[in-house]
Amino acid sequence: MLTINRLNLTEAKLIIEGAVQKAAKMGVPMCISVVDESGSLIAFERMDGGKIHSVTLSQDKAFTAASARKATHTFNQVCIPGDKNGLFGIHTALGGRMCIIGGGLPISHDGTVIGGIGVSSGSPKQDVECAQAGVDMFNRLSSPALSEHVL
Amino acid sequence: MLTINRLNLTEAKLIIEGAVQKAAKMGVPMCISVVDESGSLIAFERMDGGKIHSVTLSQDKAFTAASARKATHTFNQVCIPGDKNGLFGIHTALGGRMCIIGGGLPISHDGTVIGGIGVSSGSPKQDVECAQAGVDMFNRLSSPALSEHVL
Amino acid sequence: MLTINRLNLTEAKLIIEGAVQKAAKMGVPMCISVVDESGSLIAFERMDGGKIHSVTLSQDKAFTAASARKATHTFNQVCIPGDKNGLFGIHTALGGRMCIIGGGLPISHDGTVIGGIGVSSGSPKQDVECAQAGVDMFNRLSSPALSEHVL
Amino acid sequence: MLTINRLNLTEAKLIIEGAVQKAAKMGVPMCISVVDESGSLIAFERMDGGKIHSVTLSQDKAFTAASARKATHTFNQVCIPGDKNGLFGIHTALGGRMCIIGGGLPISHDGTVIGGIGVSSGSPKQDVECAQAGVDMFNRLSSPALSEHVL
Repeated sequence: MLTINRLNLTEAKLIIEGAVQKAAKMGVPMCISVVDESGSLIAFERMDGGKIHSVTLSQDKAFTAASARKATHTFNQVCIPGDKNGLFGIHTALGGRMCIIGGGLPISHDGTVIGGIGVSSGSPKQDVECAQAGVDMFNRLSSPALSEHVL
Repeated sequence: MLTINRLNLTEAKLIIEGAVQKAAKMGVPMCISVVDESGSLIAFERMDGGKIHSVTLSQDKAFTAASARKATHTFNQVCIPGDKNGLFGIHTALGGRMCIIGGGLPISHDGTVIGGIGVSSGSPKQDVECAQAGVDMFNRLSSPALSEHVL
Repeated sequence: MLTINRLNLTEAKLIIEGAVQKAAKMGVPMCISVVDESGSLIAFERMDGGKIHSVTLSQDKAFTAASARKATHTFNQVCIPGDKNGLFGIHTALGGRMCIIGGGLPISHDGTVIGGIGVSSGSPKQDVECAQAGVDMFNRLSSPALSEHVL
Repeated sequence: MLTINRLNLTEAKLIIEGAVQKAAKMGVPMCISVVDESGSLIAFERMDGGKIHSVTLSQDKAFTAASARKATHTFNQVCIPGDKNGLFGIHTALGGRMCIIGGGLPISHDGTVIGGIGVSSGSPKQDVECAQAGVDMFNRLSSPALSEHVL
């Protein structure tokens, strides 16, 4: 039997809060999804003004990051037709659910991926920054010194 | 041009909070979705232990309730093969996205539907009760006397 | 609660009329979709001779333009494998529903997107021209001086 | 953070072996899927002669059993149009992925669902029997006395 670590709802909401704070500072209303290590949605928020297509796109970014255990933007720069790396086409896998646009980041604990965040509605760069703010919030609050007080 | 009223994120999160409180009292971890009047997701939470299929099912219940402007369980009792009402088959429409199982309720303001809630993971009866608790939370907080203080 | 402005059916039909007039002059029978600000279809016309795949493609163009709040052809020129903008892959998102081919334009009122038009069956250039003719029709008729007489 | 127990591949293959042995005795070549507690496939085997639609159907049975934490045939007997239990319609949820035909069983350890098995190609009764044989194999081998020697 395997023992798996997974984000809980309290953590997912904190991660979203971190991303929302960054988005609010930017002035860009975002859609933010947090999934577990299997890619299943734990929590989602569409800030007032977030884009409709980002409801799905943020979930797909979070799914891809959690499942592939990589930032989605790292796929973007290597998904090139004819390239020897052979990665072109990953963006159409799973009916397009695999998302290679920036804004998806894995969330890890002790070196193991336990979930993912996906942000969409801004530019890829803005989406990545907000997703990172969500990850940062988690890392800050799950550090040993703080976790006993907060989580 | 039409002018449309729509739930905002703050309200969606309060509605979820109402449903979560009820689910916690019941001891049944739920998936809860809140959509706008067009059926697009505003906020979602999967309580720890909520079921995986309920991620989608709660969204479909919320979509159906907001779009049809009816509680999903009202469809259930009239979706009967051969019945003169001619409603049988609604449950397979939109690739099964139309959901006739209890747990989806429209959310209204001044007689107009401005969104919907969908709850899934318990029995249909439990799902309806939690969805109603979400609606009640909204109605309580959006009453004229309270709204200026809270929303 | 949010208050949202949205195209009504009368406006949607006028927008289509603008596009149809342009298409007739060109001699290219088109499929024309008009959606609301949430991407839901308000009106659709397939001119006699319009292409079958354009039934879907015009809807996807309109959806993309309304949701992303951008002309679809602006995505086309920047969706380049390996480009530093990181936008490659947007064309396969949402199962390919995100459309980056010209012919989708947002429709705005007072700086806010209230809908979108999508045109398909001609070349991308022709599709954009017809979509623009639809937008022009709306802007002309919704100008303050005229709108009270017409809409 | 949550800590989740999940079937591993060794266990999944033993579960399939249990089902295959039963199917061989019956003389009915089966498709057999084993999923984890999130409904994701761990192992699959199509015995020579297994039916093509059962490739998908066995996966959907396993998914449903693991996610709903119930045998799929228990849904079958209560999914009745107009019934007061309000469960009719569950069979078309998730685009029909929710499967209420016998042959899907949850797999538990210490009272918690850690995966599911789905069997398809025979009659529902045969499918259930083979699925049960898979579960029995797991329970036998995961009993405290044996597990240290085998798993």
